[in-house]
Amino acid sequence: MYPISGLQLGISCAGIKVEGRKDLTLIKVEQGSTMAGVFTQNAFCAAPVHICKQHLSEFDNKDDFYLLINTGNANAGTGQQGFDDAFQCCQAAADATGLSRVQVFPYSTGVIGEDLPVAKIVAGIPAALNDLSEDNWANAAQAIMTTDTVPKGISRQIQLQGRTVTITGISKGSGMIRPDMATMLAYIATDAKISDELLAKLLQNAAEQSFNRISVDGDTSTNDSCMLIATGKSAEIDALSADEQQQFVTALNEVFEQLAKAIVIDGEGATKLITIQINQGKGQQECLDVAYTIAHSPLVKTAFFASDPNWGRILAAVGRSGISDLDLEKIEIFLDDVCIVSQGGKDIHYREQDGQRIMDQEQITIRIDLARGNESAQVWTCDFSYDYVKINAEYRT
Amino acid sequence: MYPISGLQLGISCAGIKVEGRKDLTLIKVEQGSTMAGVFTQNAFCAAPVHICKQHLSEFDNKDDFYLLINTGNANAGTGQQGFDDAFQCCQAAADATGLSRVQVFPYSTGVIGEDLPVAKIVAGIPAALNDLSEDNWANAAQAIMTTDTVPKGISRQIQLQGRTVTITGISKGSGMIRPDMATMLAYIATDAKISDELLAKLLQNAAEQSFNRISVDGDTSTNDSCMLIATGKSAEIDALSADEQQQFVTALNEVFEQLAKAIVIDGEGATKLITIQINQGKGQQECLDVAYTIAHSPLVKTAFFASDPNWGRILAAVGRSGISDLDLEKIEIFLDDVCIVSQGGKDIHYREQDGQRIMDQEQITIRIDLARGNESAQVWTCDFSYDYVKINAEYRT
Repeated sequence: MYPISGLQLGISCAGIKVEGRKDLTLIKVEQGSTMAGVFTQNAFCAAPVHICKQHLSEFDNKDDFYLLINTGNANAGTGQQGFDDAFQCCQAAADATGLSRVQVFPYSTGVIGEDLPVAKIVAGIPAALNDLSEDNWANAAQAIMTTDTVPKGISRQIQLQGRTVTITGISKGSGMIRPDMATMLAYIATDAKISDELLAKLLQNAAEQSFNRISVDGDTSTNDSCMLIATGKSAEIDALSADEQQQFVTALNEVFEQLAKAIVIDGEGATKLITIQINQGKGQQECLDVAYTIAHSPLVKTAFFASDPNWGRILAAVGRSGISDLDLEKIEIFLDDVCIVSQGGKDIHYREQDGQRIMDQEQITIRIDLARGNESAQVWTCDFSYDYVKINAEYRT
Repeated sequence: MYPISGLQLGISCAGIKVEGRKDLTLIKVEQGSTMAGVFTQNAFCAAPVHICKQHLSEFDNKDDFYLLINTGNANAGTGQQGFDDAFQCCQAAADATGLSRVQVFPYSTGVIGEDLPVAKIVAGIPAALNDLSEDNWANAAQAIMTTDTVPKGISRQIQLQGRTVTITGISKGSGMIRPDMATMLAYIATDAKISDELLAKLLQNAAEQSFNRISVDGDTSTNDSCMLIATGKSAEIDALSADEQQQFVTALNEVFEQLAKAIVIDGEGATKLITIQINQGKGQQECLDVAYTIAHSPLVKTAFFASDPNWGRILAAVGRSGISDLDLEKIEIFLDDVCIVSQGGKDIHYREQDGQRIMDQEQITIRIDLARGNESAQVWTCDFSYDYVKINAEYRT
């Protein structure tokens, strides 16, 4: 992963849940940078999410600022104590760096409902500060993992007005994944210079088509946070022509999409990446309703795990997705290029071996043409395996 | 199970999916009886569901009528062929009994998307007719099973105006269970005399609080049908006093509730029955939204499978249930009598061993007091185990 000039990362092992595991990450962002964030819509959102939003409205980007990320504990469902604990951690990092508390942004991920081990985190801060380096992205991708099995990071470089612009991002997440505005911890940075207003807009749009389009298990986390940082060391995006701006947006959206898909591919127990593409809908919402009904159907997900072209379960999910006046005769359902349903039942050309060929793949697209309009939506999900149950039945043991 | 005077059941082994398995049931209902039905709201509802509704509006209860039920094939997602096939089966039963086709009501359950083996069903009808008996309820409960591991039946008798009134019912269902107006095959009969209008009302109300309040996996079936039959051999319910009518309604609702809960207890892979009770809501719908968000959360369900009092997952589910302006400080969450959440976090008196004690039980109630109003709703669901995945990954093999 390419470093981002103006941004350093430091990692330490604070022993939050397991001794000797990288579990604390500090990201130092140089003064003059801009940052935007999107957060979970879960009403029971965690203390660090509240504080992060508050600090975003109060911090001063004429000073350096820090992101403080711990795994092993979500500091969610912890009431007033959770706020006090998160404040204390921020204050410790602020004291160690000579900044005020609002310059430190807290993020927590892990088990819900247990008190944050403040002393361990505070004790881990000096080592993380000592470790700060622009080349630490890969280590940070690892240090923010919980049930993830692989670290998730990606980089893109493009040329704009003769300057190299870099975008680098990391994400984590594997279960409790059905983001609603953002997903469980993603940090994307660029060395481009971007105004606060434009940055917020770019983040919203990119998250909407990436992290807000994935689901592992339908469970929206209490801690989802996605941050976009622009350090301003390279080209100024606001000043670009529409065409050049579009080049940047395309690269940025690609980074978001790759990070989001990486979460689904690494979904708890997942063996397959399933892309659900709904076309010809009357509106975005009905496309998404159909897509998520399929994405959340345990029967569809277990059939994919078994590589069983049991398309009747897809059809049943479409049928219960709540769209009124569906014209069943016109709907067509495809597995990749294979038409499985048309005219209200099994397509007359469908052969089980064709369905089986697609189901044996690791990446499969379910495409549904609703024949009602011109809207489309795309969602990514994964299958449902023994290991999902195993991971989540044994999570706290 | 007590027989219902005026109603006989006959079973045969038609070899629809497995040779030698009871898979075909005929229920003969004597002339003068009334019948009401509620059906799946799945847009892709099966051919027999369409035909059943049509015959309900056309049949003549001055004649006998028959219910023809097969397992092993749902005749859903089968297009026009599915209609032709179901009509052919009804016609065969009508020919064999000297009735017109609309006097035969078809029901199918099993795999979706495969053509109905009409010849096998037609060939199985004579043996089922030959088997007709008032004492065959237990055999019928067995013959309508698919992935069910136990037959589900219940009987109640009450005294009304010096006469014994009997209610007997059977149901089947284990997966693809999230009924919306009715569940996958339930047949409840009484020897009471009940008008069409009252019967429809009683059925609606009873189903609403029973089959429409359960979920195994959130997947509404394409074939859900629930029929209530009154043979009119005993007391006339329409003519009763309000008090006596209420006695009957109570007994009827109890039969429905027991049959519905039996489906959840036998839910695919289920090891626990979870009652979710939402109190103090502003309206029914928000109570149900919270209840079903919990009932459908794979994370909550796997935690219950593991007997892990990981209450943070319940809290997270409440938080994402879409209720606006939730006052998190006022919500209280209980596992049976143990308060786990109050004032926005873990209740200060909560001890892990108390939660563990409840989680070790086979029947658990999650109670949530929303502190917003006076509405309540109750939903039943089950946990999510390895076996759910196993059953549904191997369903067609």
